Amino acid sequence: MDVKLSRAIFAPRSIAIIGASADSSKTASRPLRYLLDGGYLGSVYPVNPRVTDIAGRRSWPSIGALPEAPDLAFILLPADPAIEAVEACGRAGVAAAMVLASGFGESGAQGREREARLARAAATTGIRVLGPSCLGLANLHEHLVLTGNAAFAEAGISPGGVFCASQSGSMIGALLSRGRAKGVHFAGLISVGGELDLGLGELCEGTLDDPRITGYMLFLESLRDGGAIRRFAAGAAERGKPVVALKLGRSAAAAELATSHTGGLAGEDDVASAFLSDCGIARVDTLEALLESGTLLQCAVLPARRPRPATVGVVTTTGGGAALVVDQLGLRNVAVEGPNEKTSRAIRATGVEVAAGRIADLTLAGVRYEVMKASLEAMLASSQYDLVLTVVGSSARLQPELAVKPIIDLGNARGRLAAFIVPEAPEALAMLAAAGIPTFRTPEACADAIAATLGRRPARRLDLPKPRPAVPSHILDELEGYALLRELGVAHAPAAMAGDSDKPDPALFPAAVKVLGRNIAHKTDIGGVVLGVQSPAEFPAAARRVHEALALKAPALAARGLVVQRMVESAVGELLLGYRVDAQVGPLVMVASGGVMTEVLRDRALRMAPVDLDEAHAMLAELRGLALLTGFRERPAGDLDAVERAIVAVSRLAWRPEVVELEVNPLMVLPKGRGAWAVDVVARVAGPSA
Amino acid sequence: MDVKLSRAIFAPRSIAIIGASADSSKTASRPLRYLLDGGYLGSVYPVNPRVTDIAGRRSWPSIGALPEAPDLAFILLPADPAIEAVEACGRAGVAAAMVLASGFGESGAQGREREARLARAAATTGIRVLGPSCLGLANLHEHLVLTGNAAFAEAGISPGGVFCASQSGSMIGALLSRGRAKGVHFAGLISVGGELDLGLGELCEGTLDDPRITGYMLFLESLRDGGAIRRFAAGAAERGKPVVALKLGRSAAAAELATSHTGGLAGEDDVASAFLSDCGIARVDTLEALLESGTLLQCAVLPARRPRPATVGVVTTTGGGAALVVDQLGLRNVAVEGPNEKTSRAIRATGVEVAAGRIADLTLAGVRYEVMKASLEAMLASSQYDLVLTVVGSSARLQPELAVKPIIDLGNARGRLAAFIVPEAPEALAMLAAAGIPTFRTPEACADAIAATLGRRPARRLDLPKPRPAVPSHILDELEGYALLRELGVAHAPAAMAGDSDKPDPALFPAAVKVLGRNIAHKTDIGGVVLGVQSPAEFPAAARRVHEALALKAPALAARGLVVQRMVESAVGELLLGYRVDAQVGPLVMVASGGVMTEVLRDRALRMAPVDLDEAHAMLAELRGLALLTGFRERPAGDLDAVERAIVAVSRLAWRPEVVELEVNPLMVLPKGRGAWAVDVVARVAGPSA
Repeated sequence: MDVKLSRAIFAPRSIAIIGASADSSKTASRPLRYLLDGGYLGSVYPVNPRVTDIAGRRSWPSIGALPEAPDLAFILLPADPAIEAVEACGRAGVAAAMVLASGFGESGAQGREREARLARAAATTGIRVLGPSCLGLANLHEHLVLTGNAAFAEAGISPGGVFCASQSGSMIGALLSRGRAKGVHFAGLISVGGELDLGLGELCEGTLDDPRITGYMLFLESLRDGGAIRRFAAGAAERGKPVVALKLGRSAAAAELATSHTGGLAGEDDVASAFLSDCGIARVDTLEALLESGTLLQCAVLPARRPRPATVGVVTTTGGGAALVVDQLGLRNVAVEGPNEKTSRAIRATGVEVAAGRIADLTLAGVRYEVMKASLEAMLASSQYDLVLTVVGSSARLQPELAVKPIIDLGNARGRLAAFIVPEAPEALAMLAAAGIPTFRTPEACADAIAATLGRRPARRLDLPKPRPAVPSHILDELEGYALLRELGVAHAPAAMAGDSDKPDPALFPAAVKVLGRNIAHKTDIGGVVLGVQSPAEFPAAARRVHEALALKAPALAARGLVVQRMVESAVGELLLGYRVDAQVGPLVMVASGGVMTEVLRDRALRMAPVDLDEAHAMLAELRGLALLTGFRERPAGDLDAVERAIVAVSRLAWRPEVVELEVNPLMVLPKGRGAWAVDVVARVAGPSA
Repeated sequence: MDVKLSRAIFAPRSIAIIGASADSSKTASRPLRYLLDGGYLGSVYPVNPRVTDIAGRRSWPSIGALPEAPDLAFILLPADPAIEAVEACGRAGVAAAMVLASGFGESGAQGREREARLARAAATTGIRVLGPSCLGLANLHEHLVLTGNAAFAEAGISPGGVFCASQSGSMIGALLSRGRAKGVHFAGLISVGGELDLGLGELCEGTLDDPRITGYMLFLESLRDGGAIRRFAAGAAERGKPVVALKLGRSAAAAELATSHTGGLAGEDDVASAFLSDCGIARVDTLEALLESGTLLQCAVLPARRPRPATVGVVTTTGGGAALVVDQLGLRNVAVEGPNEKTSRAIRATGVEVAAGRIADLTLAGVRYEVMKASLEAMLASSQYDLVLTVVGSSARLQPELAVKPIIDLGNARGRLAAFIVPEAPEALAMLAAAGIPTFRTPEACADAIAATLGRRPARRLDLPKPRPAVPSHILDELEGYALLRELGVAHAPAAMAGDSDKPDPALFPAAVKVLGRNIAHKTDIGGVVLGVQSPAEFPAAARRVHEALALKAPALAARGLVVQRMVESAVGELLLGYRVDAQVGPLVMVASGGVMTEVLRDRALRMAPVDLDEAHAMLAELRGLALLTGFRERPAGDLDAVERAIVAVSRLAWRPEVVELEVNPLMVLPKGRGAWAVDVVARVAGPSA
């Protein structure tokens, strides 16, 4: 987004409010009122042909009648007149228009038709559009409050450093009010609506160079235009501005709701996780953590890739309260480790006995300033911990100065100190917030924020070739698929084409005999596979069986011939290895437990492609079914090194824009040192089948 | 607990504080101070031989010197002198003593020795003991505050209806202060500590007939004496007093922490869930829900066993805010359903268009009183819903009267209306609380409380025979095990004993040949199984192989002979069916996915035994691996009716106190109509092998 457009949206010198109401009981009267009450200093033009003045200001009959083309228009009209207004604004030279109305993409055929007209109005006039369903925006440093959301009616909203972008319009009000109660101050907030033209990524990118913005908070229902979000996130990372996101859709019900609610396509939730993680965005799951994680994200050092999971040390005066957080951290796979011998010795030097265990429980002795301070110092000095969390008990309420003073005096040492306050203790919370200590009010938000922060990874700026249009596309035949795998460096079981009357190479037996042809996705379903063919002598009969089955089940199939492939008999287990280009977020690589586990359990690990060997290793570690490949019961251990190399190889399809999708299923994992072999491959490439 | 003891603990007429300190900077000075400040009306005796008066009261040199035997003593001394004090109290006729000191069971050999001495002091003198590690108790209706917890130092704590019992001492203070901030008022709170003598169940039972107590809140680290908790819970249910519990240990880390922290044995977490559920106790996972679920539990009708999962209807003015709760409800398997045609028509009659979907999103129109009220009425009138949740947006903050009036005017209709307030809106929250509407502040706590409330079941009062002492015990041989299964009504594959030179019945082939003997838990590991013996002619060779393997791997084994069992070849899949008597909570029945899934995924469902067919059905439905038995890919569907009958049959071992443990692994599931067959069984019974 260029600077001029960014200024027009976030710091406009003039604004038109089209459809402003003179009736103060109407919602359409609010944006003008809030804008004026908020102390906006630019020019404001209410546009409403049916009245002559609104709130003491002249009301203009049309956008064309204004003395200048305003930078920004907020259009409060219903869907159809709103489209006309956008076109009029565009013709008049307005830089950007926010459309409040809903009733576009999400509302069936009529909605899609409106969406097309709105897009055309923008394209033909050059105006940029926010929305539809855009509930407004605020730039609090500029006294710009351009929304009807009731939360913005309040006086005394002090500006701060957080910029919030939300796909849900009503949430900007809730985040503003909840933030205030927690001492979270916003630089600005924006409801991005349906993202027809300007999307969340581009809008946020337009704010990156505002020095008053120190970090970002995103409320997401689904992902649209991943490329723009990635560019924004990379820009934010370069400027040291952390981004935290809450994305709906962890449950199937919510994923469906996001689809119907926003009219967009809700991706699978683990795709969103992989994408956000790859962009260096911290994803939280709780509303409280979205609001409370800012300080921790600001100060916590972005972890380098670690050889071990993130580790937290816990110092407390209240075992029960600490256990609440430890439980929640455990559920999020954050390790909590007790002090090692050296650290324990340093704590004991304060005169407190700390029992061996997962936390340093100082009990009541920890209420003493010197004991708590020295214990925290000892923990912070230890190289064991990525973060030291102090869990403060009832003393935080009765004697806030005493209870939190050791924490405040230590300061936020290298971003490695955080606090969870167990009782209700507003004073202690305020003191810690003022001192810049990341502080949490519930065990769930505390663990959520810590897991999201320590789990962050560096933002990746990917400059991949643009994927080719996938329409038309076709599926390679199996041997073409293997040729592609060989180019990538993925092994497969030996295979060769065979005519019906050929005598295939005995080295290929025992063999599978399969139909060979393009655009065949499921050979087995059409009877195109005969397994366990023991010798070349059995080949003709097998070939006959394939042909007979095909004649019955897929008479129209244009087969190229047959393929004979050696059966893999010494496999330890099987995996599924996949690659696809997601329309919103781009190329993805996936590995999943094979066979029954794939379908019943959806036991899979996903990453944005390409990945390196470390990442492939981490993917395998996520599979519950990995246990079957590492020496389960009497089985030998599988060649996981080969699997990791195969994952990396397939992920490099991200550099081959003609490949839309590829699935190796199964990938047979042989015993250690013997590799991993594809025994089927379905690869879809752009372009006609020829 | 008899009434006299209950009065002595919860409404004592006289109290001794042993080890009270005259130094007001010491923690040991607090209990006396808080007790006097709290306005306690009974007699108070500080006992401290080193001073003559404390806080203006005469200090007594010893418990024996007091003019009367007080009802209750709070002992603040360190562990060893505390034991002596308990004994002295017992001899003096004190009814109950609370021991503050820690350093008992949890602290190695010395701790266990102290624990034994403390138990002896109680047993020999007849005094009842609370603790060790008991941080005190409060009965706020009686102005009784007997604790050093700083949270109780505050003036103006108004009493209410909730009684809270906590295994974590420090949490009683945190719950008190957090409760106050949310308008939750307590009748009393107790830190039950290490439960050496009086446990949580018995203590809570002692409060059941207090009419001022309307419900219970439990903070649990582990389960001890399940029988007492069950009696308490059944009594609470009979009196219509709901019980909500937060139990630590969802994560492996916390389970371990609970073990080390309390010195008790932390059970597997799903055992705790099964037990609490069977007792009719609502289990929540978030601290906020523990505090906020009281009103919902009070008014929600205890569900009869349902033919379908609990269903919630959502009415909102804020799609994004509602989606937050829907997501959380989905994660907890609570169904959220859109209004059916009839309900939708009733809502449309208010003049609002509601899009088809999972929620009734009134958008801004719902801010109007009549629209919201009529829509809620329509939803409440529908038989679709167990609960109707209204999710209120920013208007709750700007115009609280307007936003929540329709909800308040409807009242808490048959316990089926609840509210989640999305913005920060303390006034709206207070109004709803005053009107008795269950109201929530975070989507997570809201969903947690709803899932726990709708998932409750009637408390079961079980009067099972007492289990026989399990030491000594022995494992039945396989044929004895089958005889037991036949008595229960569980089928098994045909099997018979065979001597080495016997000619076994041809009907048993193809067969497995296995070693037969008592106390053999893992036949395969010692080479005691040969599979796939095709005919009686092959039997001698198979018998030889078993004997040779045993001679090598288990030379000391005293085998009774061999068993020949027909191989089950047409099974759809396999399950594991188990029964055991847990030391804390009693008899449990378990069904688990068999084979690889059992070990890798721990895919299992647990219940307290005995269960009926409906419950057995529900257990199967919990298994992810069930998909493999209901017609997966080309497989036939399995005989799940037979599996359910087998679960019920095995669960009835709860009436056979001599059986300590039984495991059928595998239970082969045959195609529909053909049954389910045990092909191995390990049953442990009390008594010597003889």
